[in-house]
Amino acid sequence: MNFITYVYDNKERVGVLKEDKVISLEELLKDCNEVIPKDMLDLIENYDESILNKLEKLLEKENNNYISLDLVKLKAPIPYPKRNIICLGKNYVDHVKEIKLTQIAGMDIPEKPIYFSKIASPAIGDKDSIEFSKSVTSKVDYEVELAIIIGKDGKNIKKEEAENYIFGYTIINDVSARDLQGDHKQWFKGKSLDTFCPMGPSIVHKNAVPFPVNLKIQSKVNGEVRQNSNTKNLIFDIPYILSDLSKGITLKRGDIICTGTPSGVGMGFEPIKVLENSDIVECYIEKIGTLSNNIKVND
Amino acid sequence: MNFITYVYDNKERVGVLKEDKVISLEELLKDCNEVIPKDMLDLIENYDESILNKLEKLLEKENNNYISLDLVKLKAPIPYPKRNIICLGKNYVDHVKEIKLTQIAGMDIPEKPIYFSKIASPAIGDKDSIEFSKSVTSKVDYEVELAIIIGKDGKNIKKEEAENYIFGYTIINDVSARDLQGDHKQWFKGKSLDTFCPMGPSIVHKNAVPFPVNLKIQSKVNGEVRQNSNTKNLIFDIPYILSDLSKGITLKRGDIICTGTPSGVGMGFEPIKVLENSDIVECYIEKIGTLSNNIKVND
Repeated sequence: MNFITYVYDNKERVGVLKEDKVISLEELLKDCNEVIPKDMLDLIENYDESILNKLEKLLEKENNNYISLDLVKLKAPIPYPKRNIICLGKNYVDHVKEIKLTQIAGMDIPEKPIYFSKIASPAIGDKDSIEFSKSVTSKVDYEVELAIIIGKDGKNIKKEEAENYIFGYTIINDVSARDLQGDHKQWFKGKSLDTFCPMGPSIVHKNAVPFPVNLKIQSKVNGEVRQNSNTKNLIFDIPYILSDLSKGITLKRGDIICTGTPSGVGMGFEPIKVLENSDIVECYIEKIGTLSNNIKVND
Repeated sequence: MNFITYVYDNKERVGVLKEDKVISLEELLKDCNEVIPKDMLDLIENYDESILNKLEKLLEKENNNYISLDLVKLKAPIPYPKRNIICLGKNYVDHVKEIKLTQIAGMDIPEKPIYFSKIASPAIGDKDSIEFSKSVTSKVDYEVELAIIIGKDGKNIKKEEAENYIFGYTIINDVSARDLQGDHKQWFKGKSLDTFCPMGPSIVHKNAVPFPVNLKIQSKVNGEVRQNSNTKNLIFDIPYILSDLSKGITLKRGDIICTGTPSGVGMGFEPIKVLENSDIVECYIEKIGTLSNNIKVND
């Protein structure tokens, strides 16, 4: 099942995507004795398997009032996460190789995961603009990433139980100001500019994704394929990440963890390629969809 | 004025500290036609100078129903910030010198601020325990820091207008797992273990603190003075930080920014000193108070 947050008829709603049709949870659950989640975080914080089973059955009904996806404005599935997005750096071998000689990296395959955080408040949605001013940064890059949505609070999670702590998966474009990443040494600021966290288009529930996760991951700029890999190529896989990260830190329902990006980022080209005004960046992951954003350079 | 979050009679309240007496905003405003803030973030998000003036006048009344500070349990002033705490690394010259040769640092006085983020959900309060397991970290250190509480949303803030964007100041002990900071390269995880963000005891409103901020800052472990400096010694001062950080990032009411720590951390000693079970760490800043926490090592 693919969950979305969207605006229709001037109201923000949580719903389910079925091919190119949308139905709100409110509509789907209208004849049930269920509390309607007020937003995606509310759904994640209160869901259990019984609600999911109910939703699946309701989706099979023939007389549902779907509307066309074309009629809604998609938002980031979780526009205001409760904590910053947790990200991994250098988690695909081919990406480590392509950036090895830059000032930001300069190290080999990491022995332990490199964690940093990224502001997402709000995360932007599909078709929203990534905006920046040339006076702040002139080296903006894309990074398509599989993001894990935590579905159950957990600390010291065992690798073999990792999947139990997952609600589902979405796409995040970990937009990065390469100059600021280098200037400030720690990556936080270069990753956290306003609009630098496109998320979506949907959250696919884990039940629709066989584990371990084996999904095509791709990005394009103006239609040209730049990144093209598979999530099975992670250096630190999802069970390792959840186990390692939760040593001493309680992961909470609704937390979002970006698992790193494959090779093909702009910084990996010789000469480097930076995002320019009017460019269109498309991030695709199998079963989740395509997250498309245009670049808007101010000044 | 010093604002606190505390529990009294099994209820969490926001109040004002007057010497060793406490009064809740609810009690103070009971005869006014004012909405009572439901927590500190609600106060910060909705306050203006007129409310502050009113509170100041009400505090002058002689028949206020104060209770003794001894009778309340202090919490972190903002236990659940909406975004991670934003921290600066290496922002006192003497601290840069003491850690210069460690694996975490290895660089000179920074040319630009080093920003990273720290999880605080919840931030712990005065007298709460800093807890960790030796299987996760064996090199835990203290860092007393002046923390700025943002009082007005702002982007591209001008240095000369920085004070307008401040609500007040508190103390954060930026507790750090030095081994994890080194292992994971980026500092986020080593700074973000559960209970590693003691905050408080109060937020002093900016009106009580002449600008530029010139406050004694000190830490003690088991009564022994370890850090002893003044906030005037920051490498990047508060106007610089707010101006630089807000280039491209909107700072929001309730955001918390730690300004860095002076020399005297455990890692700066030869041999290094680490926090052990039952140690008491006291962090003091003039006009804000003393934030005291004990160490509890599990396993």
